[in-house]
Amino acid sequence: MPATEVQWSFQEQQIAKVAFERAHAREVEELLAFVRQQAAAINAVEDLWKLNDFLSARRHNLDGKYADCPNTLMFVLAELLRDGWLQLNDLEGLAKEKVTKISLLSRMG
Amino acid sequence: MPATEVQWSFQEQQIAKVAFERAHAREVEELLAFVRQQAAAINAVEDLWKLNDFLSARRHNLDGKYADCPNTLMFVLAELLRDGWLQLNDLEGLAKEKVTKISLLSRMG
Repeated sequence: MPATEVQWSFQEQQIAKVAFERAHAREVEELLAFVRQQAAAINAVEDLWKLNDFLSARRHNLDGKYADCPNTLMFVLAELLRDGWLQLNDLEGLAKEKVTKISLLSRMG
Repeated sequence: MPATEVQWSFQEQQIAKVAFERAHAREVEELLAFVRQQAAAINAVEDLWKLNDFLSARRHNLDGKYADCPNTLMFVLAELLRDGWLQLNDLEGLAKEKVTKISLLSRMG
């Protein structure tokens, strides 16, 4: 069944929303710490442009990943799980087959 | 006389080159210190994207300003003088009328 046909109850949508917010907050916190650390060690103009490129790439990635798109929800949750920004207990309350599918997808990515 | 018709002797070109390098080094040093200071105070994702935009703009500005273009040399030297990245003594050795023109331009910018 393609992900586009997956139905999400209102409650499940709320659970996914909270999971997204948690993952986003965790990812941003790590990013902030990383940038503060990188920036403190900057000594040359090339380091600045590297930081600039890094920020542009991360911004593009974050904007895309956390865009509110129901069609890709399963895949994004799987990606967040794979990358450690979500744990399985963040998905508690979703239908069992969804969690299984997300978990499976996360190991295929 | 348009700036494009200004003639630069080999010696003057060398003096301009050294002045450019000095100005660039001074400007970069201040930029590095500013970014280190800004980055240390970053607390939210919006601060990151502001830093990203700031770096993109400064990069564009620096790349353009220090591009090796003889036709705009007078104007760039005037801009660097106006912004304090060069002092008049950095231009020592250039023909007097050039220094006068650059100095005049710097007060018109």
